[in-house]
Amino acid sequence: MYLVKIYVTYKQSILDPKGEAVNDALHRLGYTNVENVELGKYFEIKLHADDRPVAAEVDEMCDRLLANVNMETYRYEITEMEAL
Amino acid sequence: MYLVKIYVTYKQSILDPKGEAVNDALHRLGYTNVENVELGKYFEIKLHADDRPVAAEVDEMCDRLLANVNMETYRYEITEMEAL
Repeated sequence: MYLVKIYVTYKQSILDPKGEAVNDALHRLGYTNVENVELGKYFEIKLHADDRPVAAEVDEMCDRLLANVNMETYRYEITEMEAL
Repeated sequence: MYLVKIYVTYKQSILDPKGEAVNDALHRLGYTNVENVELGKYFEIKLHADDRPVAAEVDEMCDRLLANVNMETYRYEITEMEAL
């Protein structure tokens, strides 16, 4: 069993209105030392080992479903759960 | 300048319908070895050092705005950006 942590964020060139909104809200609450906020998605996926490498499967899942590769980038960490 | 990465996820006892939906969609796409999906929020916040410890400020920001502490838990990593 593997635990995969996937982080999906907007590409640098793409506007992030939700991140802007959080940035403004933090300023209004008095956290004026905040410079920039980016908001992304975070997936924790548990999966069984297959006959194919886990990383290849995760790449494919991200490209097909979890990230919009036109606007978003992703990175991930794979951990064997016995090792946790 | 600090880079703070914050991960907000539902507590174990709280239903995660979006995670369920992603789990079902992955199964339909043929990734039947996926056992469980949890979907959370991911924030990347850049901030300047203040007169107070960064961790104390991040805890307060999470409690007041970024997480709904009734339903969600959060964890974070703080990195000094000069060290990146």
